[in-house]
Amino acid sequence: MTPDLGRKALAEFVGTAFLVTAVIGSGIAASRLSPDDVGLQLLENSLITGAALVALILTLQPVSAAFNPVVSAVEAALGLITWSVAGVLAVAQVCGGFLGAVVANLMFDLDPVTLATTERDGGGVLLGEVVATVGLVVVVFGAIRAGRSATIAYAVGGYITAAYWFTSSTSFANPAVTVSRMFSDTFAGIDPVSVPMFVAMQVLGGALALGLVRLLYPAPTQEISS
Amino acid sequence: MTPDLGRKALAEFVGTAFLVTAVIGSGIAASRLSPDDVGLQLLENSLITGAALVALILTLQPVSAAFNPVVSAVEAALGLITWSVAGVLAVAQVCGGFLGAVVANLMFDLDPVTLATTERDGGGVLLGEVVATVGLVVVVFGAIRAGRSATIAYAVGGYITAAYWFTSSTSFANPAVTVSRMFSDTFAGIDPVSVPMFVAMQVLGGALALGLVRLLYPAPTQEISS
Amino acid sequence: MTPDLGRKALAEFVGTAFLVTAVIGSGIAASRLSPDDVGLQLLENSLITGAALVALILTLQPVSAAFNPVVSAVEAALGLITWSVAGVLAVAQVCGGFLGAVVANLMFDLDPVTLATTERDGGGVLLGEVVATVGLVVVVFGAIRAGRSATIAYAVGGYITAAYWFTSSTSFANPAVTVSRMFSDTFAGIDPVSVPMFVAMQVLGGALALGLVRLLYPAPTQEISS
Amino acid sequence: MTPDLGRKALAEFVGTAFLVTAVIGSGIAASRLSPDDVGLQLLENSLITGAALVALILTLQPVSAAFNPVVSAVEAALGLITWSVAGVLAVAQVCGGFLGAVVANLMFDLDPVTLATTERDGGGVLLGEVVATVGLVVVVFGAIRAGRSATIAYAVGGYITAAYWFTSSTSFANPAVTVSRMFSDTFAGIDPVSVPMFVAMQVLGGALALGLVRLLYPAPTQEISS
Repeated sequence: MTPDLGRKALAEFVGTAFLVTAVIGSGIAASRLSPDDVGLQLLENSLITGAALVALILTLQPVSAAFNPVVSAVEAALGLITWSVAGVLAVAQVCGGFLGAVVANLMFDLDPVTLATTERDGGGVLLGEVVATVGLVVVVFGAIRAGRSATIAYAVGGYITAAYWFTSSTSFANPAVTVSRMFSDTFAGIDPVSVPMFVAMQVLGGALALGLVRLLYPAPTQEISS
Repeated sequence: MTPDLGRKALAEFVGTAFLVTAVIGSGIAASRLSPDDVGLQLLENSLITGAALVALILTLQPVSAAFNPVVSAVEAALGLITWSVAGVLAVAQVCGGFLGAVVANLMFDLDPVTLATTERDGGGVLLGEVVATVGLVVVVFGAIRAGRSATIAYAVGGYITAAYWFTSSTSFANPAVTVSRMFSDTFAGIDPVSVPMFVAMQVLGGALALGLVRLLYPAPTQEISS
Repeated sequence: MTPDLGRKALAEFVGTAFLVTAVIGSGIAASRLSPDDVGLQLLENSLITGAALVALILTLQPVSAAFNPVVSAVEAALGLITWSVAGVLAVAQVCGGFLGAVVANLMFDLDPVTLATTERDGGGVLLGEVVATVGLVVVVFGAIRAGRSATIAYAVGGYITAAYWFTSSTSFANPAVTVSRMFSDTFAGIDPVSVPMFVAMQVLGGALALGLVRLLYPAPTQEISS
Repeated sequence: MTPDLGRKALAEFVGTAFLVTAVIGSGIAASRLSPDDVGLQLLENSLITGAALVALILTLQPVSAAFNPVVSAVEAALGLITWSVAGVLAVAQVCGGFLGAVVANLMFDLDPVTLATTERDGGGVLLGEVVATVGLVVVVFGAIRAGRSATIAYAVGGYITAAYWFTSSTSFANPAVTVSRMFSDTFAGIDPVSVPMFVAMQVLGGALALGLVRLLYPAPTQEISS
């Protein structure tokens, strides 16, 4: 039985909420507990984000586990879901992400919402967002097109942990998470003025990755040939 | 052959003992070896707890591997075990956890039992326990309802490692482990006065998660549709 | 086709050599690169040992991948191999481990063999070796008896990483590795005077675990019932 | 349908590009964010390289995922691909690796290409490259010969993370990555004068490993007998 749209939207809402809580909450904890060591903070933040993604994707993938409007859009472009479904899921992702930011703030005894003041820009950082999103989309859809979707949780968890480090932008790679990170003026925050260019670079990365996926895996139904 | 109740209780006793030994023992080692860096202590404690959970669940799941009265109660609520079995398993979990605390203390040349003096309270921390338990129960039963129980070890290991960081309470999320952590006045300890509210929040989180699992996965027998 | 004894002995020789190289080599690197932080040294040493075990077990398990005389002895006690095969494999493990120690020393520009001078004793530490070995053997044979041997690599990797921290002995849990660690006077070394009691505690732990495995999994052929 | 050569070359190009970006980029980030702690830098660099390898191999293995001329050459020696295919893939790997170095430099606002000045030599280090490559090739082809290629991503990820630490050379083990690392004068760089001996040791390690694989797994089609 294919999950109905309500269940899919609920899964995207719950999953993106927990993802954003993990990103923001672990960032707050890292900056409080390791105040003098920025490298250790990012190590903590990146390992925890990857570990949370493994858990959330394993749990929700049978219903819906994109947690990312770019991923849902590529699903639509590849004909896996309709564009109107992708739109509904994107709304659920943004709403869930906002709730996740509020919960993270409240758990750490901060105001429910504070606007972030960390500006993130510059050519290297924007290139980082393109690279980060290209890689994420290739990882997700390479696995799907090759009939190995059961491995996506581990591939995405490993990829995002790595991309926090190897891109200069710390790899947001997700418009819903980017928007949500505006609402916490903490380690993982992003100033609203930096958001439009981040989202634009993510959309560009998604489009480039879509072409790459079609070249690497022209037929969606092939099986593993390793 | 379904495991009989004696074997299930033994598995819960052994598994919860090792889990509590891992939580308390790695906490003692972390605070002794990294005395000046609280962030590094929590990184060590959280990675080790997650790694131990992967091993223990993979090993004991074919018999019984809840290690957590809230999880056993949700199993009963979903009709997977009877309530009387859940009660027996909860007793085994609490007894095993107590033994685990004693063993950890003895290995590190401490008195077998010392009452912890770390008070853990405040609105943010209590919200943390609700969030932590909601997530844990959704992770466990999402996987079960979706027919992917072979992945639970990795999902729970990743989730708990992450939740140590993204909740402000460091994610106890387990009444048997919470009670056991009263008996070691070390890094992972909790003052007995803080235990009742922690357990209450965990029960509340379990109840909320039960509703969420039923919404996300209304039918228990469906197969993976990813 | 069952692997013949020569191939099994070669696999045990190669695997234990790499395991000991990983244990000793990462210990040398950790103490050189993180000289002021013992906790970080153990984190590096424990994560690397676990990662190496995942790789080595995945690679060699279809031939033979005990790397540990206690594990081979329990295999014999459970009738999976004969006692004479277990004896041959134990010799291969000890010889491989010695080569691994020499290679680690040479790679880091040390003399091929130096006798370690780190004494490891005391009641807590010896209890630690019993606990460490009980857990390791239950993890390995729980998985085998339950028909889930494909997960052993992850279970053992996670368990040993964790046990480095939660036991006070840093979990040697392996007579061949213990003997090999005499031959490098570095981070992972052990003074020869401490070796007999360590091995005795490991044998005791293996015997206790054998009983526990028989109670938890009375029939060796059952399938996963989770 | 077997992937055609163009797709295989594209997969090697893309995969090696991301691998080198991960190696160099995380090295730059580590040295900037953890400037006073070389051990923490290597921990960050090694965990991120392993995590990236898990993601890249899971994603591209159904097309082609050697990312390493030594691995492709051993595939040819074992008759899995022809030598001319191996040559084409090696060219794709080197070109991809070069692009990866340029992208990493640009993301971190450095010149596109700078020649590295870190000399890496000495008997211990060169022995390290032999050991590192022997282990890598045994891990890859042990799994393939035993019919467990679905586990290669985890085995290689774990192995490389570990080998960064247990070899004194930090385990380059890959001629395409070694050549690419000449083009970034940062944490992961290698002076061009050190490259020929590194590549020679890697080729030697590959040849030794080929013999070992044939001894351990004489027949390529056997199934798991664990």
